[in-house]
Amino acid sequence: MPLTPDQQRALVARLTAACGGSYSPDERRKHFISGPQWAAAYEGHAIFHAPTRKPVHFETVIEHFAKIGINHWTTHDTDVLPYDALGNDKQHAIVGQIDACLKKNGLKCSMVTTETFHHAVFAGGPAGEQMEVRDYAQWRLRNTVSIGHELGASYVVYWPGSLGYQFQGIVDEVQTLKWFAEGMNAACEADIEIAKAKGRPTMLHCMEAKPFEPQAEILLPTSDAMLAWIFSGQLKYPDMVGLNPEYLHELMWGGSVRASLARALLCNKLFHFDINDGYRLKHDVDIAIGLVNPFDWLNVLVLLRTYNYNGPFNLDFKPPRTTSNDGVFDISFPTAVDRFITLWEMAGEVMTDPILSEAAAALRDGSGIAPGQDATSIFEANKELWNLHELIAHRLFQILIGAHKGRSFSL
Amino acid sequence: MPLTPDQQRALVARLTAACGGSYSPDERRKHFISGPQWAAAYEGHAIFHAPTRKPVHFETVIEHFAKIGINHWTTHDTDVLPYDALGNDKQHAIVGQIDACLKKNGLKCSMVTTETFHHAVFAGGPAGEQMEVRDYAQWRLRNTVSIGHELGASYVVYWPGSLGYQFQGIVDEVQTLKWFAEGMNAACEADIEIAKAKGRPTMLHCMEAKPFEPQAEILLPTSDAMLAWIFSGQLKYPDMVGLNPEYLHELMWGGSVRASLARALLCNKLFHFDINDGYRLKHDVDIAIGLVNPFDWLNVLVLLRTYNYNGPFNLDFKPPRTTSNDGVFDISFPTAVDRFITLWEMAGEVMTDPILSEAAAALRDGSGIAPGQDATSIFEANKELWNLHELIAHRLFQILIGAHKGRSFSL
Amino acid sequence: MPLTPDQQRALVARLTAACGGSYSPDERRKHFISGPQWAAAYEGHAIFHAPTRKPVHFETVIEHFAKIGINHWTTHDTDVLPYDALGNDKQHAIVGQIDACLKKNGLKCSMVTTETFHHAVFAGGPAGEQMEVRDYAQWRLRNTVSIGHELGASYVVYWPGSLGYQFQGIVDEVQTLKWFAEGMNAACEADIEIAKAKGRPTMLHCMEAKPFEPQAEILLPTSDAMLAWIFSGQLKYPDMVGLNPEYLHELMWGGSVRASLARALLCNKLFHFDINDGYRLKHDVDIAIGLVNPFDWLNVLVLLRTYNYNGPFNLDFKPPRTTSNDGVFDISFPTAVDRFITLWEMAGEVMTDPILSEAAAALRDGSGIAPGQDATSIFEANKELWNLHELIAHRLFQILIGAHKGRSFSL
Amino acid sequence: MPLTPDQQRALVARLTAACGGSYSPDERRKHFISGPQWAAAYEGHAIFHAPTRKPVHFETVIEHFAKIGINHWTTHDTDVLPYDALGNDKQHAIVGQIDACLKKNGLKCSMVTTETFHHAVFAGGPAGEQMEVRDYAQWRLRNTVSIGHELGASYVVYWPGSLGYQFQGIVDEVQTLKWFAEGMNAACEADIEIAKAKGRPTMLHCMEAKPFEPQAEILLPTSDAMLAWIFSGQLKYPDMVGLNPEYLHELMWGGSVRASLARALLCNKLFHFDINDGYRLKHDVDIAIGLVNPFDWLNVLVLLRTYNYNGPFNLDFKPPRTTSNDGVFDISFPTAVDRFITLWEMAGEVMTDPILSEAAAALRDGSGIAPGQDATSIFEANKELWNLHELIAHRLFQILIGAHKGRSFSL
Repeated sequence: MPLTPDQQRALVARLTAACGGSYSPDERRKHFISGPQWAAAYEGHAIFHAPTRKPVHFETVIEHFAKIGINHWTTHDTDVLPYDALGNDKQHAIVGQIDACLKKNGLKCSMVTTETFHHAVFAGGPAGEQMEVRDYAQWRLRNTVSIGHELGASYVVYWPGSLGYQFQGIVDEVQTLKWFAEGMNAACEADIEIAKAKGRPTMLHCMEAKPFEPQAEILLPTSDAMLAWIFSGQLKYPDMVGLNPEYLHELMWGGSVRASLARALLCNKLFHFDINDGYRLKHDVDIAIGLVNPFDWLNVLVLLRTYNYNGPFNLDFKPPRTTSNDGVFDISFPTAVDRFITLWEMAGEVMTDPILSEAAAALRDGSGIAPGQDATSIFEANKELWNLHELIAHRLFQILIGAHKGRSFSL
Repeated sequence: MPLTPDQQRALVARLTAACGGSYSPDERRKHFISGPQWAAAYEGHAIFHAPTRKPVHFETVIEHFAKIGINHWTTHDTDVLPYDALGNDKQHAIVGQIDACLKKNGLKCSMVTTETFHHAVFAGGPAGEQMEVRDYAQWRLRNTVSIGHELGASYVVYWPGSLGYQFQGIVDEVQTLKWFAEGMNAACEADIEIAKAKGRPTMLHCMEAKPFEPQAEILLPTSDAMLAWIFSGQLKYPDMVGLNPEYLHELMWGGSVRASLARALLCNKLFHFDINDGYRLKHDVDIAIGLVNPFDWLNVLVLLRTYNYNGPFNLDFKPPRTTSNDGVFDISFPTAVDRFITLWEMAGEVMTDPILSEAAAALRDGSGIAPGQDATSIFEANKELWNLHELIAHRLFQILIGAHKGRSFSL
Repeated sequence: MPLTPDQQRALVARLTAACGGSYSPDERRKHFISGPQWAAAYEGHAIFHAPTRKPVHFETVIEHFAKIGINHWTTHDTDVLPYDALGNDKQHAIVGQIDACLKKNGLKCSMVTTETFHHAVFAGGPAGEQMEVRDYAQWRLRNTVSIGHELGASYVVYWPGSLGYQFQGIVDEVQTLKWFAEGMNAACEADIEIAKAKGRPTMLHCMEAKPFEPQAEILLPTSDAMLAWIFSGQLKYPDMVGLNPEYLHELMWGGSVRASLARALLCNKLFHFDINDGYRLKHDVDIAIGLVNPFDWLNVLVLLRTYNYNGPFNLDFKPPRTTSNDGVFDISFPTAVDRFITLWEMAGEVMTDPILSEAAAALRDGSGIAPGQDATSIFEANKELWNLHELIAHRLFQILIGAHKGRSFSL
Repeated sequence: MPLTPDQQRALVARLTAACGGSYSPDERRKHFISGPQWAAAYEGHAIFHAPTRKPVHFETVIEHFAKIGINHWTTHDTDVLPYDALGNDKQHAIVGQIDACLKKNGLKCSMVTTETFHHAVFAGGPAGEQMEVRDYAQWRLRNTVSIGHELGASYVVYWPGSLGYQFQGIVDEVQTLKWFAEGMNAACEADIEIAKAKGRPTMLHCMEAKPFEPQAEILLPTSDAMLAWIFSGQLKYPDMVGLNPEYLHELMWGGSVRASLARALLCNKLFHFDINDGYRLKHDVDIAIGLVNPFDWLNVLVLLRTYNYNGPFNLDFKPPRTTSNDGVFDISFPTAVDRFITLWEMAGEVMTDPILSEAAAALRDGSGIAPGQDATSIFEANKELWNLHELIAHRLFQILIGAHKGRSFSL
């Protein structure tokens, strides 16, 4: 039986309630989860696709986040500021409104980021050949740092966006990477200066990589490329600069997300983490966490809990084009937060599972054979122990589906 | 505390038992599951990697399959026949031994396949430029068909293997595809002739695609490429020829496995299915089912149950190099079978979930707006209904983890 | 020394002239090359990127194509028709203006295609669950067929666009593929009817695949998937339906473009060909032909010349965001056409090279060993012959760089 | 007309000579090119593929390299030493023979590397959980350093090989990366000690990444991941450790090779470079340089010449399975070296082309607009200048095919 839009809304509400499993806003607030303005306000457009949703003002976003239990809000400068407001009195007025709205709703601004890709001035990239373009980009970065201090944020994120190039051979990549460092140096200097003036701590500056988009070949395609650049000697304040990996961006190019995060942890550079989901080899679809790779996500959260990551989990996803303006706040955000918490708690089950613990300990203890130079003897001595690798993988599957908690089938 | 190999075996056995969740051999035998000789006998070698396990004779494999509850066995010709036995009395003797062993253990041979890639004669491919090579390959295909009839198999699988080429421009691809059709025509003709002589039905001839290996560019990289070739007009008996998709092979190139299978189903060409798991963009790692993408596997089985697929599920995986000869039969095969059955039954839960059923029905019924030419009105009329897409995805996550059966966390 | 915009224009013109190597418009007109309205009018925008160029009216495009020597023009319905003109008098008036403009400039419209992805009504795809959406999509297809007949086009192209889905498990893929066939059946029926009424031949209906975009998983990701669908038995007029492969789309998913085209040729379904360039594993960057993979392009054109492909070469590329409105017609289009012709002629050099011809003949002739069942003897007999594979590849490199025409270096 | 093997050899020799374009051995010796023992001795085998060539002893390889004009030789420990010779008198004897053979033929050993992946003892990786395995791996690394000093090598390369894992969640990645650092620390300490004892300089220790193989997920998949690890603080001698990127390995995962090398250059870590060719998204096919991506290779060499890279170019390719033992030295190696030199010299043409130079200078000089905060004005001021990006790309195509040297077609 066909349903009119109002009947559709009622059906959706009824089925959402029937799913169950929601956490309370208070439970959700125990986690350091942040929600981006751009995610909530994304209108569903793309290069070949018109919008399917209406614009959403920051006040609406902040109010809804408060109700859901997301207590941090994040933004690009131009998510909330038109170009003609940047750096002048209009900016001051709008930032004041945001601050008031956040306070009224009990939220904090945890992170700010600069759009250095959308405007035509960045057609050749924010670190293009012309000094006049690079000067402008640096000014934008410094301005965002200033907004961040005004809103009390602790993190600044940088996505170089069009720092890429369509044709090989037209750009001197080494020089461009140096120019890009000049931009970061300018931002860090502004931060140091403003922080000193305001008596605030400096912020954590976080690089975000994306391997495939928006252009063709990319100069800094992965979190690892960014670590290399941070440590290259070109940055004046490398200790202030770290990473904002995004789950899907690491996955897209074929990296194991756990391994990417492990390298960032090894370098003490895992500052901020964008959480979402999607498909390897596909474009940046930004699906909400757990809807594609829940098993991998479980393992990722085990690693982060093991190494006590305590930074933000930023909900950098795009509600699908088929979800309505109401659905964004009724379905997309609450179910995303709930799947995150469920997987977080399941990670705790993994960490305390006695079978997994005993297997890991046995693997570390080895066979007890005396160290030596006979490869075959060492192999033979450990041969049966290595069976635990496959058994551990099977046990993780069981925990994912709840078999360890008594879920049973026909057996 | 270090453990000696014997103590390691005891520990592995104890932890395996502690995992629980095993189905009985009788329960396993209710499914049309087959086990390949090559999977059980794989020694763990690779181009840069020496073997880690000892050879395993077909009698050992068949006996273990019987105990586990896998009641079909599959093989390449050269898995069991040395080159100097092909086509002569030695072949006859060995095939007789296999037949006796299968009968003794209550197993059936469901499928045979020809190795047309390993021997140096196939360096330029089994459908290379020289007629003398192609003649030899055709003889091998006909010989395998004859073995299949002797063992009572119903399926023949073809993996073209090196039907690829390292350098673009050295092969006339159109001509090569025609030569490849000549090989299939020869096999089908042999089948028709032998079937008639023996009073048996002809077999189902199943093409298997692999996108990346073993060489560089591939002439028939996907199941779809093979469907195109089947329907190209070059085959004399296109109705005898269909597909043996492999889960990982479809995934590797970036295809949605469900969508690949749907196209095969649409064409009535889903004859046989190789089940395993692995990673997109990685090489043909052949991990056992459910250890990487259990959520995707759940959805794949929903599709196959919906369209009543009743062909074989062939366990075409490779026990990892870290698993021992004993582990292959104690861990690899039984846990793979059990995960398959669990996911199969979970697919039944999806198909009968009332929330999912109501959502699907509502989407099909639509808004009831009169058909017309005003795109915006039609969009507005259906706008809230489409929220169900995201809700369905969330519900599938809940069924995967068992939330619908009462699994709960901190809420 | 910095240059003002006018000085920049002069510099660009001078350097363009200095490059040399242009073909005359008359020489260009000897090839069946078509230019899309959308390529010339693309404003350089993308999801994270604002436009860098101004809109370009079809009259401007057609005039510039005439001057350059591109004598066919192609279009989407909504490239030239606003939504409120579709199917009514406004459409009639605009199509009349196009027809007049084409005639005035001596161009022909070779192909039309329907936009079934941009408008919000296609949020769930043009073959979504609701009959009301599918009815609308069918009407749009029939309307485009009618426009095509009015403009004298011979080809209709179909890019399903959002016929994809973000979440696995929410769509019945088999059913959706059937619904999609209903759309094609409606378009073919409209074509037959209109063609009969007008005394014109029916058109060639060409499916175009794209593996990664715009959504996540795709139902018909490759040209092969579309061939399978064409032959599935769901189409009423399968002989009217073939392919419009796009070079980059075939490359993106990891296919060898030559092999993809060979399969289409084998099936007699290579109706239309979109030419451009780009990078595997990257998004749909639509770079102009020859700027990324000139060597592969050379080999592709050898294949097409060998099999006498005589359909259109459609310049489906996007001038880069850094090219200006003037640059589109001064640089992008003429250099793209010229590289195509150069590679086409170089393909002729490959086809007549005596070294390549002798090598190919020797490979086909083989060793003369008697056909038999001894694999090793056959291998040994052909072993030295196969060296020609690598030598052919080296020779193709030499032809690409002009070594066979006397280009020399330090030797 | 069929040809017997002897006639085949004559034909191959005649056609090879007809291709022309060879450099003299003396010309080849001007470049720092090295040839690996394993490349020349590769028998053409793979996991599903038997060998097609016979083993080749190091004396044969060294003699052939001398004749061709390749004056450096590189090796794994186990390319030349059986396992039972490692670390004992047999090793000493064999290394002495190698040294004598190199001297006799006028070659030098430039690089040594340890096989830490092939033997079953590395089934769980060389930095696996058991200390007994890691101790053994460290001993192997120290032993190779000692061989390197004995043969006068300046470079040691490390390919972690199986430092990967098939199942997510079974390995603590952070811990494993630390254990891997322990191995490198042991190697560097051995180097310092031996160098001091012998009065030689220490060697350059070079990490080599490979993204897809041999196992599933990889801990250090890219050169960038290795840079991050080098700078992580876990290495005791980070200045001794740098990179050995391989062209194809960087390409496989979707990186721009030029951009990867630029990051290595920025960090002063481009120590050694493996040159070959192949296909993105395919497996590690190791095709000889220039046979797949000659245009990209041209651009790569422009970058390396621009930044004065003066380390080795190591011919890390695999002669195809279709090439015979004779063909390896008659075709594979000499044509690979010649294509490298041709592309190197063509890179010089790019660097001195007046059109490219003038375009690059104009882009750097910009428009002269005063620095400011008005994005649109800055864009407008540079808009026409950016046209040079596309023109530069077209010019590079012209240089590749020789149009700038007068190669012409029908125009």
